[in-house]
Amino acid sequence: MKTILLAVLLAAAPAFAQQFTSPEVHTNGQVTFRLWAPNAKEVQLHCEGVKNTAMQKDDHGVWSATTDSLAPDLYVYSFNVDGLHVLDPRNPLLKYNLLNTENQVHVPGPKSLLWELNDVPHGVLHHHFYHSAVAGDDRDFVVYTPPGYDPSARKRYPVLYLLHGYSDDATAWSTVGCANIILDNLIARGQAKPMIIVMPLGYGTMDVVRGGWARVRSPDLWQQNVDKFSEALLTEVLPQVEKSYRVLKNRSSRAIAGLSMGGTESLVTGLNHLDRFAWVGAFSSGGLNTNYVAQFPQLEKQANAKLRLLWIACGKDDGLLKNNLQFCDWLTSKDIRYTWVESPGWHTFLVWRRYLGEFAPLLFQDK
Amino acid sequence: MKTILLAVLLAAAPAFAQQFTSPEVHTNGQVTFRLWAPNAKEVQLHCEGVKNTAMQKDDHGVWSATTDSLAPDLYVYSFNVDGLHVLDPRNPLLKYNLLNTENQVHVPGPKSLLWELNDVPHGVLHHHFYHSAVAGDDRDFVVYTPPGYDPSARKRYPVLYLLHGYSDDATAWSTVGCANIILDNLIARGQAKPMIIVMPLGYGTMDVVRGGWARVRSPDLWQQNVDKFSEALLTEVLPQVEKSYRVLKNRSSRAIAGLSMGGTESLVTGLNHLDRFAWVGAFSSGGLNTNYVAQFPQLEKQANAKLRLLWIACGKDDGLLKNNLQFCDWLTSKDIRYTWVESPGWHTFLVWRRYLGEFAPLLFQDK
Repeated sequence: MKTILLAVLLAAAPAFAQQFTSPEVHTNGQVTFRLWAPNAKEVQLHCEGVKNTAMQKDDHGVWSATTDSLAPDLYVYSFNVDGLHVLDPRNPLLKYNLLNTENQVHVPGPKSLLWELNDVPHGVLHHHFYHSAVAGDDRDFVVYTPPGYDPSARKRYPVLYLLHGYSDDATAWSTVGCANIILDNLIARGQAKPMIIVMPLGYGTMDVVRGGWARVRSPDLWQQNVDKFSEALLTEVLPQVEKSYRVLKNRSSRAIAGLSMGGTESLVTGLNHLDRFAWVGAFSSGGLNTNYVAQFPQLEKQANAKLRLLWIACGKDDGLLKNNLQFCDWLTSKDIRYTWVESPGWHTFLVWRRYLGEFAPLLFQDK
Repeated sequence: MKTILLAVLLAAAPAFAQQFTSPEVHTNGQVTFRLWAPNAKEVQLHCEGVKNTAMQKDDHGVWSATTDSLAPDLYVYSFNVDGLHVLDPRNPLLKYNLLNTENQVHVPGPKSLLWELNDVPHGVLHHHFYHSAVAGDDRDFVVYTPPGYDPSARKRYPVLYLLHGYSDDATAWSTVGCANIILDNLIARGQAKPMIIVMPLGYGTMDVVRGGWARVRSPDLWQQNVDKFSEALLTEVLPQVEKSYRVLKNRSSRAIAGLSMGGTESLVTGLNHLDRFAWVGAFSSGGLNTNYVAQFPQLEKQANAKLRLLWIACGKDDGLLKNNLQFCDWLTSKDIRYTWVESPGWHTFLVWRRYLGEFAPLLFQDK
């Protein structure tokens, strides 16, 4: 009987499929990538932190390339086969994305790295689904509750609203950004206050992503996207969270931060609603309306009394660095206090995981 | 400033990428699939319910194929480009899998179909992470709580343990099997009792899947996989669930069911632990040790008094049909009562979504 099962299971698996691993991470941090593509003319490896590399074919039609040693981290990669974007069929670790799903490879490192899964208590991720009247669609948000969270106990927690970037979805911060692992580690070390993290779908309208990157070109659609997102967050997600979870419901216990598009949404939502949020973070933010006075009509020097933290960060090699510096200049001109962080790196989760690791410990600390 | 962002965002997107949609579902249920692969010699569409189809190339290098009308459902598909397995880069709807991720296309249907997202109250999916001493690794389980579940209220719920198949992971039943949507719909119609569903990672050892399909060939490893899974479920997952959720803790309020490998695991775990489970379901089960007496040493006629339901189902076109019939013959020879369902279809979630829709309403009903 079992042989029949095996015949069924194995029917789709060619013999070569057993014979190699990809990616193979060597102990020195070098990584070998492999792809069986006997009929391809040219196969390229596209991997973060590695120059695009022409892969070499062996006699069995398996293409391979080995990188130099890579520092411990999670790197995004894919193959280009004669111009075609191809995922690594041997690697189940994906970087899911609405417009461009790729693979990831984990070069493991010491336990001190915040995204390494350690033997510490783990929080739980809760996936909620609801119909949004604001956006006119069915959508979701993900909630991280910290280790030891007990819905029937008296203890209440502060909340960080954490927003993804353009083309990501509500799962990006947990599956790619390792937000739950990073907070588990920070909390276990006593470096961050136990907090709830809410990761909503970050679009005011799905039209901005449904049609692909071209839709970003429309300033009206983009602004509608940002504004409707704010409205959905404040009038739909936040009330559901505050009804379903044991959270503190004052502005000093609410933070909002995000990356790229989500950084812009955090600035627009947070700085225009200081009655709701005392902590604001913008990681490599992009797409902010440069008519700052129109975007932040009420932002004056008095805001400093309400803003516990305005944290703005961008990678030195990020094309958005100039935009972020320009916004900081405007904040300076308005006498608004902020923290500016310029770090190594470009527009990638390699940077954003580190930003979350730096930002979360600053939150909800007593004066 | 925005133009800089746009330049960054659009840099990776070739112009053609804006010009076509894939898959395009027509109102009559026909589906057109498209792939840009100008250098390919041959592109095939592999789609459930459709004969493998050679796609045709147009002048822009876009290959396409249009199916006949497909009945409303969720179909798995992928492309084969000169022998290479390629996902549809235009379609974010994936069927994630540890060994063979593919795409899905949704041909929408009437609200009466159980996997259609309807305007009904939705349950929540909770993703738990823990270190398994039994399996010696870090792993996860997903818990569905029904609409209206309130962790601080007195009401307690029965629990269905729902197991995935070989090569799937703990998210398969929710993301591909639509288990949460199906239960939301059944509960809204009053056709199933509100219940909690626990969807654990279904391997006793990851070795059985880490090395690919070939590992299924080893009977010892396979049996270890099944047995260790049972142990992890009973000694690790079940206690965490019963501690964290408001569940009924008697055998009449516990069910176990699964598909393929998970069907076998449900039979082995359920029928050998009738002190814990009164309801057992096996959907297209595969890999069951045919030495039934050794696998179920205590299963005698007296079990009928404890078994509220033993539900065994398989598709007529499934290669595992004979195995399931053979097991049923043995049950008959032992005077064990069971329900046998032989349905249209093969070894696929098209069948398993329907099985869940048939099985869940039978559970936890009063005598």
